[in-house]
Amino acid sequence: MSLNHIRIVLVHPSHGGNIGGCARAMKNMGLTRLVLVAPEEFPGEEASARAAGADDLLAQARVCATLDDAIADCHLVIGASARERRIAWPMLAPDEAARRVVAAAATGREVAVLFGRERTGLSNDELDRCQILVNIPANPEFSSLNLACAVQVIAYEIRRAIEAGDAAAPADAAEMLGEPLATSGEVQRFYQHLDQVMVATGFLDPNNPRLLRRRIMRLFNRIELTSNEVNILRGILSAATQPLPKPKS
Amino acid sequence: MSLNHIRIVLVHPSHGGNIGGCARAMKNMGLTRLVLVAPEEFPGEEASARAAGADDLLAQARVCATLDDAIADCHLVIGASARERRIAWPMLAPDEAARRVVAAAATGREVAVLFGRERTGLSNDELDRCQILVNIPANPEFSSLNLACAVQVIAYEIRRAIEAGDAAAPADAAEMLGEPLATSGEVQRFYQHLDQVMVATGFLDPNNPRLLRRRIMRLFNRIELTSNEVNILRGILSAATQPLPKPKS
Repeated sequence: MSLNHIRIVLVHPSHGGNIGGCARAMKNMGLTRLVLVAPEEFPGEEASARAAGADDLLAQARVCATLDDAIADCHLVIGASARERRIAWPMLAPDEAARRVVAAAATGREVAVLFGRERTGLSNDELDRCQILVNIPANPEFSSLNLACAVQVIAYEIRRAIEAGDAAAPADAAEMLGEPLATSGEVQRFYQHLDQVMVATGFLDPNNPRLLRRRIMRLFNRIELTSNEVNILRGILSAATQPLPKPKS
Repeated sequence: MSLNHIRIVLVHPSHGGNIGGCARAMKNMGLTRLVLVAPEEFPGEEASARAAGADDLLAQARVCATLDDAIADCHLVIGASARERRIAWPMLAPDEAARRVVAAAATGREVAVLFGRERTGLSNDELDRCQILVNIPANPEFSSLNLACAVQVIAYEIRRAIEAGDAAAPADAAEMLGEPLATSGEVQRFYQHLDQVMVATGFLDPNNPRLLRRRIMRLFNRIELTSNEVNILRGILSAATQPLPKPKS
């Protein structure tokens, strides 16, 4: 069942009540896998009270210290974001994002949908882990949804996409090449490797790196790299930083 | 602006926190008109806390003693319902219902969307006031959404329908006949009149009336009666219960 490949990740949630509300919203729509990154209040009475019968999701919830732990094995990472950004990310409406989630999950890929802190949402560093952002349309003068309500809208659209059988996805790299997509962990290690090389070669100033790094990550996030492709790119980086072979004399 | 013609009606909500959560969900989507029928806890601290900046909606909320007070001037009444019913009501998905709401509001009609009690939803008597029911698709084993989350989903679909400009409605009776639709109050008074006549004539057993009454209301609710048509029907009822005129001799 493709719902089992979809996880909802709450990044640093502050209020236990919201965690419970999210668990209820998920279970209402048939989702079961809740992951919490460094929650402030969990487990606790407020979470159980607001879960209102979704205690099983709370009991099974995975608690991680970092976002990277939460998504290391994921092939598709989508971030919920209300804000406009300086650099354009691919930004989808909830129904379109849900079709992408369901299409990926239907082929057995691991999918994560990230929701940020109650007050400030996802940080730029966290958004850098996302291939796609999803934006819930809202009143521009009052656009911050309650966390459980935001999860409810996305979970509702995921359920609708499943019921509509909208899982027909455009062929992606993995299908066309016949090889598995890279996981988020593999891609992150590639970025670290690339970063080291860019700094070592003087291409990137480590004291003022932010925009350039982000543009490059954004570029590769769009591609849906396969594991093999990541290995090839890292091979190039390794080769480029070896001392040149001595010319034949 | 058509949003001003749409009201959200909470029927006997138990928890102040849920009222605040609903106000926030509404304001997030640009809705402003909240009506409360006999709320248990209102106003109160919990409502204000969960409103999280939508206090203006709480301050402006209309509190009514009965559902009929809340919807007397409405032309379209839609009820949120999770349950299957013995008699089939017209039951729409949220996106389809939202298009109907927006289409009606765009022509200046007053529209109400009703949400029932946290535990038990809308009663059959309350559903009898509705021309249409809306059902949020859900996990059949855990189908009861938090009240604010249910309002969030419907309000989200209303906002989407407005943004999509999906207000193109099929021509209805009022448009075709060039006369105003009857309000919910006018229709209710017609039902009472019809009921008296059915009982007086022996057609309806007042000790076992439930199913027949409901079928008849369901029938007329589907028609979208105009004010003139209600007057004509009531004229027939009045005439039918007058003593017959003496035959000319």
